[in-house]
Amino acid sequence: MPVNLSAPDPSRLFPVPGVRIGVAEAGVRKVGRKDLTVFLLDEGASVGGVFTRNRFCAAPVQICRDRLQAGEPIRAMVINTGNANAGTGEDGLARARQVSDALADLLKLQPGQVLPFSTGVIMEPLPVDRIVAGLPAAVADAQPNHWARAAEGIMTTDTVPKAFSAKARVGGVEVTITGISKGAGMIRPNMATMLGFLATDACVAPALMKPLAQALADASFNRVTIDGDTSTNDSFVVVATNKAANKPVSSLDSDDGRALLSAMQDVARQLAQAIVRDGEGATKFIAIQVDGGKTADECRQVAYAIAHSPLVKTAFFASDPNLGRILAAVGYAGIDDLDQAKIDLHLDDVCVAVNGGRNPAYREEDGQRVMKQAEITVRVNLGRGKASETVWTCDLSHDYVSINADYRS
Amino acid sequence: MPVNLSAPDPSRLFPVPGVRIGVAEAGVRKVGRKDLTVFLLDEGASVGGVFTRNRFCAAPVQICRDRLQAGEPIRAMVINTGNANAGTGEDGLARARQVSDALADLLKLQPGQVLPFSTGVIMEPLPVDRIVAGLPAAVADAQPNHWARAAEGIMTTDTVPKAFSAKARVGGVEVTITGISKGAGMIRPNMATMLGFLATDACVAPALMKPLAQALADASFNRVTIDGDTSTNDSFVVVATNKAANKPVSSLDSDDGRALLSAMQDVARQLAQAIVRDGEGATKFIAIQVDGGKTADECRQVAYAIAHSPLVKTAFFASDPNLGRILAAVGYAGIDDLDQAKIDLHLDDVCVAVNGGRNPAYREEDGQRVMKQAEITVRVNLGRGKASETVWTCDLSHDYVSINADYRS
Repeated sequence: MPVNLSAPDPSRLFPVPGVRIGVAEAGVRKVGRKDLTVFLLDEGASVGGVFTRNRFCAAPVQICRDRLQAGEPIRAMVINTGNANAGTGEDGLARARQVSDALADLLKLQPGQVLPFSTGVIMEPLPVDRIVAGLPAAVADAQPNHWARAAEGIMTTDTVPKAFSAKARVGGVEVTITGISKGAGMIRPNMATMLGFLATDACVAPALMKPLAQALADASFNRVTIDGDTSTNDSFVVVATNKAANKPVSSLDSDDGRALLSAMQDVARQLAQAIVRDGEGATKFIAIQVDGGKTADECRQVAYAIAHSPLVKTAFFASDPNLGRILAAVGYAGIDDLDQAKIDLHLDDVCVAVNGGRNPAYREEDGQRVMKQAEITVRVNLGRGKASETVWTCDLSHDYVSINADYRS
Repeated sequence: MPVNLSAPDPSRLFPVPGVRIGVAEAGVRKVGRKDLTVFLLDEGASVGGVFTRNRFCAAPVQICRDRLQAGEPIRAMVINTGNANAGTGEDGLARARQVSDALADLLKLQPGQVLPFSTGVIMEPLPVDRIVAGLPAAVADAQPNHWARAAEGIMTTDTVPKAFSAKARVGGVEVTITGISKGAGMIRPNMATMLGFLATDACVAPALMKPLAQALADASFNRVTIDGDTSTNDSFVVVATNKAANKPVSSLDSDDGRALLSAMQDVARQLAQAIVRDGEGATKFIAIQVDGGKTADECRQVAYAIAHSPLVKTAFFASDPNLGRILAAVGYAGIDDLDQAKIDLHLDDVCVAVNGGRNPAYREEDGQRVMKQAEITVRVNLGRGKASETVWTCDLSHDYVSINADYRS
């Protein structure tokens, strides 16, 4: 059961002018599942993306990187679930190209104008024939109001589709922002999540798309973790269709840039947090805030050490305030000159430890009360400086083991 | 159920002349448990130790480090389970001193001649009164042949006591080596394991004890991981009672030094591997061998990334050859210039991937056959150089979650 997350109401997802989406059942891995999604972009759209830092990155990730770098105008994206096309070598690259070339043919585009994405099992050959056979149906299905369908179409072990939408004012003009994401396991984005797509009709200078995607990922997908496993397929793509009447945003440091970034960040953060709320087996949503660091990097390092500790995660699952496990994770996070005598720990409003030892006023029943909540904030103060960072994670439950022991069966 | 590990046969554990061991029930956390162990060392023993790198190291760890540094001859060690005395601040240091001072009084030693050790729950005050009250019984129990009792006396979530013993020839003289260890969770030693004690009657120059302890830890405890959680209390102590007739070993690079090191390493490795075999919830024992690295460090880095991946560990639990997860972990291990096209993967004798892609000859049933075994070797070749390293780990099962969700209850 996801933590405080329900399926999106399709009527609350605003279409983004210039984007049409179609979904089909191609039988990639299982029959009767929406497993093939296409995004069709009107001429004039700008696209930016950030991708996994995993050195074993999937074939489609390599192709997306090359095509965005080459700068041909992107007009379509094709996403399959059920097969990640990762760990597939040269043959995998050829298969990813066959799929995107087939879509380019259908749409009368150049091959370099299509971005392919895959998610699913690693190290199995992509079933090109079935995917190509499904493309006409996906294209025929394309509509501007199909965001909820797309959110469903890219799910793998997700239990709930993830889509969010917002309106914002940029340069005095109302613009629309809508996005979808997927992912529930192998989630420790190191650039972006498994798959995230965010579109706006705002006018944005093409050169700004890559830094915009990076800034959005840094504030959202690069702040979440479920199991510490950085995927081979993480991809986060941002589209500006340039259909709105605003003066093109050319800097993130301008008033317009800040307004757009802030509104898009809200949606990106909701998409990223939705992945954690629907984390495999998750029963709790946990924000880990590390204050008082010398640098933002060391704050994140400590926050991730806590977020990845199986012992901390199982204690949250059990609602057991065995909070010394958090201190242990702080201690092994890798800050060589950390002084344990300066460290404080809070659980929501409850002060658990001060100066590296148990707070004399701390009562187990107070810790217990917070641990029972579905949403919890862990606050660690390192007592070394002024930097602060927050990451979001979930607990580790029996269902995580069940889901991942049974995933392929 | 531990993986191919049974309780030691007390008759096969050789006493080490100069070491007596006593165990008592002090009721530290639960009644009716052997939870207090003392080691009494004859005059003339040399002692070396290595300790956790966790910056939140426990109070007894801080005291042990100081006392070994100060160099007063160590004559006794006291170990309690049920309480780690970590995350306890200044008060914890005072309590650890009270316990070891009480033992020094009983034995008419100086305070600096006693080393204290604790293992158990973090961030709870050490019950000094109950431990001190138990000391006379532990001292009265002391016998040279109590190694099996001691192995039982230091257990926490261990299901099986861990003790190994060997005879070796050093400088033409037969010497004895016997050791015990404990630990099943919060195991990713970063110097040593939760607790390991290894003694020999060989004569060893006192100045060699610290490098000897380090060399032994590096070849054994620093090569195992269960859950990636580096403990606050990891301590590995090596004792040479200097009772044997060999000429004192003064260098690890001499013939005698190599003979002693090799024999002690065998025992230390058995003790370290026993911890993995009895890892919380473990059903499989997995050796991860990484070859073809540029440096030993990067081989270890990749091996630990695989060993810590929850997805890899749950696949082993399920006997599911979902082996792309191993490639993904190789990819995110942090080697920036890794070339995926050079990577090979074997599971025992089965070649799974070559040149970064699935081996065309690989058949799922071959992977399945190996995955069903209780002991498995994963071999990754990075294709970058000549370095090679091996670490040992276990799978991640439902029981790991159960044990750690219920540990304190």
